[in-house]
Amino acid sequence: MIELGTSESLKAKKKTRAEIPKNLEPMLKPKSVAIIGASRVPGKVGNVILQNYLSAGYSGELYPVNKNADEVLGIRAYRSILDIKQQIDLAVIAIPALGVPEVLEECGKKKVKSAIVVSGGFAEVGEIVLQEKIIEIAKKHNIAMLGPNCLGVMDTRSRVDTLFLPSYKISKPQIGGVSFVSQSGAIGSTVLDVVSGEGFGLSKFISYGNAAYIDEVDILNYLMHDDETKVIVLYIEGIKRGKEFVEIARKITKVKPVVVLKAGRTSAGSSAAHSHTAALAGNYEVYEAIFRQFGFTIAEDISDMIYYAKIFDAEIEPKGNRIAVVTNGGGLGVITADDIGSSRYLKMSAFSVETRRALKSAMPGIVNIANPLDLAGDADDKRYESALTAIGKDAETDMILAIVLFQTPGADSKVAAELIKLKDSLEKPMVVISIGAEYTEMHKKMMESAGLPVYDSPEAAVKSFEALLRYAEYRSRFEK
Amino acid sequence: MIELGTSESLKAKKKTRAEIPKNLEPMLKPKSVAIIGASRVPGKVGNVILQNYLSAGYSGELYPVNKNADEVLGIRAYRSILDIKQQIDLAVIAIPALGVPEVLEECGKKKVKSAIVVSGGFAEVGEIVLQEKIIEIAKKHNIAMLGPNCLGVMDTRSRVDTLFLPSYKISKPQIGGVSFVSQSGAIGSTVLDVVSGEGFGLSKFISYGNAAYIDEVDILNYLMHDDETKVIVLYIEGIKRGKEFVEIARKITKVKPVVVLKAGRTSAGSSAAHSHTAALAGNYEVYEAIFRQFGFTIAEDISDMIYYAKIFDAEIEPKGNRIAVVTNGGGLGVITADDIGSSRYLKMSAFSVETRRALKSAMPGIVNIANPLDLAGDADDKRYESALTAIGKDAETDMILAIVLFQTPGADSKVAAELIKLKDSLEKPMVVISIGAEYTEMHKKMMESAGLPVYDSPEAAVKSFEALLRYAEYRSRFEK
Repeated sequence: MIELGTSESLKAKKKTRAEIPKNLEPMLKPKSVAIIGASRVPGKVGNVILQNYLSAGYSGELYPVNKNADEVLGIRAYRSILDIKQQIDLAVIAIPALGVPEVLEECGKKKVKSAIVVSGGFAEVGEIVLQEKIIEIAKKHNIAMLGPNCLGVMDTRSRVDTLFLPSYKISKPQIGGVSFVSQSGAIGSTVLDVVSGEGFGLSKFISYGNAAYIDEVDILNYLMHDDETKVIVLYIEGIKRGKEFVEIARKITKVKPVVVLKAGRTSAGSSAAHSHTAALAGNYEVYEAIFRQFGFTIAEDISDMIYYAKIFDAEIEPKGNRIAVVTNGGGLGVITADDIGSSRYLKMSAFSVETRRALKSAMPGIVNIANPLDLAGDADDKRYESALTAIGKDAETDMILAIVLFQTPGADSKVAAELIKLKDSLEKPMVVISIGAEYTEMHKKMMESAGLPVYDSPEAAVKSFEALLRYAEYRSRFEK
Repeated sequence: MIELGTSESLKAKKKTRAEIPKNLEPMLKPKSVAIIGASRVPGKVGNVILQNYLSAGYSGELYPVNKNADEVLGIRAYRSILDIKQQIDLAVIAIPALGVPEVLEECGKKKVKSAIVVSGGFAEVGEIVLQEKIIEIAKKHNIAMLGPNCLGVMDTRSRVDTLFLPSYKISKPQIGGVSFVSQSGAIGSTVLDVVSGEGFGLSKFISYGNAAYIDEVDILNYLMHDDETKVIVLYIEGIKRGKEFVEIARKITKVKPVVVLKAGRTSAGSSAAHSHTAALAGNYEVYEAIFRQFGFTIAEDISDMIYYAKIFDAEIEPKGNRIAVVTNGGGLGVITADDIGSSRYLKMSAFSVETRRALKSAMPGIVNIANPLDLAGDADDKRYESALTAIGKDAETDMILAIVLFQTPGADSKVAAELIKLKDSLEKPMVVISIGAEYTEMHKKMMESAGLPVYDSPEAAVKSFEALLRYAEYRSRFEK
């Protein structure tokens, strides 16, 4: 018997809610968007959202709605959504909580297909009745409603962007294959910022807050069938529909990898989650068992989510667990060998006689032919190329970990470019470790943008390889 | 019986070596430096070292030595160190390995006090005899010799800098209280680059390579008595003088904290260490037992070393283990509460009635008065100030963890400035967590430079608080 946190009121509504289709398509790929509460005041949520929409390059129709203005940011504004003649796919609602029911009712009359309630002030501060009210309205009019108390969505292809975060404060991602789903707007936005700063791409970003109507089950259902999404990364505080969650969990990891960070591991965290998104965190051990049973990749920190997202996004099909380490910094090779040596899943490869011979003839005398292969501090792109090409053919190696310390005299942009080139020509998957400040960050971004996963510590790379192997093992059970 | 890795040849020399004083003072605070192998060719090791010396603002006498030139980089050069009339405190030797004995012999004749042999090509590539030869010369002439196969030293106060790393590739640190000792140049330089990029200060950097003569025991001995060093961070591959190491280990942590990352946890790492610095890694469990017994803080990754260095550098005297968490991002508060809740050392504090009352009257209605205290996404410097001032007086809280997400509309430079101000006025120690790209990094550096420890994940902050408490507990045994 699985016991998941479910509030009484929601339990009663479970059946009826599940019957109603909650399609995320009009929200993520809208042809027309109304921004209700589009303010003329710089810094106000509704102003920032409209601003971001404009600068993101969204090509659909945009309708600001403002009770007191005929124009916002140079665009014609409407007093009410009912004043707009055209069909509206998505209404973004950014007005004080008490006004939301009325506006949502108007959206219903207007037959708006989807709505994002950005506003807070609902169940998370005890306003349960107000939240129930908007659920009823959404249901009655069949509006796919996200939130309340959320950041909303971003889609790098349709360029929808409802995040009320000033653009100078946060980097926005390039187009990629990872969809990131977060119950918390804060965690969502920090991850968004970090991955964008690293040059890593996303497909969709969905911050769903209180999950009053559309919840994690609906979102996973949508993303499972979304061809633009190769990897799903999930931060959740509470799961409301336990049975349905288990059903989707069982199916989804057979289709694509899911990385999950679940809050509420402890009673301190659980009670914090409750006052954050009104989530009932439930028993973590139960969740953990479900995640493990269905091949989810469990993250324990925000950085883990990003590490695992990278390796899955690279779509590596591991053939085995034998790792070769190539480095221009001996000490880093040593630590990495230790990390691999203490892994339950990985081991250092023993190069074949042919590989050793090839390396011996290609490397200068100061290079000891061993794994880790220390190319020495003066290694340049040519030395990396020779070494990696030889190891790429090694029959005893399954994956390659290339360490590049850009602080050394020999390592420069040519090495980064060489690794990007080798990524496609090598017969084996490769990831990179680089650690450092500005000069290094520049090269990390260069490689990451080209689809080469770059990690900032041996530990991060090693745990990512482990996650990859665990998931491959899980998938293999169903592919036989 | 403690069994530490000790090569036979070195074992035989133990007694005589220990009798000779190896004073690091002339190396770290030299009045005059000769750079032997100071090349005219840009990019060459001896050229980069001289270049760096010039740009670091070293105020002592500088003497390039070059067999074939009378001038290097605009400075008069000497054909041999014997041609220099003045007394030389430090000779930096950056010439091919085979030429080192002759040059070192000349240093002896010249009565040079200390020497750094940067060159590789000794025991780490099997040239044991060559290494023994330079040890003999150093001993005979009583030269405090560091290396070979190392980056040498940097001292932020004396501005000595022998690192042959181009300055555009690596950030250099501001003046601080942490001395970082690394057997590996690669690990040394990456840590140097990372901490400098973060705005964190160092006292000394010592990369000691093969440890042929001066070894970790000598260095620890020096740093224990060095008033400029508040915290020691150590990366070691092998320990040569086990007995002496245990002696210094017993004493040193009673004086100042020592953070250690030891390579060779596994056989894969041990054999890699051997071909790196010719180190015999020995049995890791034995080392670990010694480290624990003597209150060392054990790091498991490069990032750990930096995390722990920061918390110790802040010179916090923890009064207890009850932590208050203040955040402008609810989800981050939840994860942090989970991390604290699952710690064996820490717990979330329960605010006193007075504190709850003070917070209630100072915070807007949307803020739930609880720990973690979620100040909400629109929190500005004023709200942080009110909240932290109230919690600073809370009798039930020992330390404060302030989370600032600079992606939110309310958080800007004023919040960073407020936290810097509060650091000195609050009655409790405080650390910060901030996660993000450029805009965030800028503010992290601002706070870090002002001596406020900033972490990039809840996990990092929590494990640092744990390290602090463990060490305080160790110290307290001797202070009663």
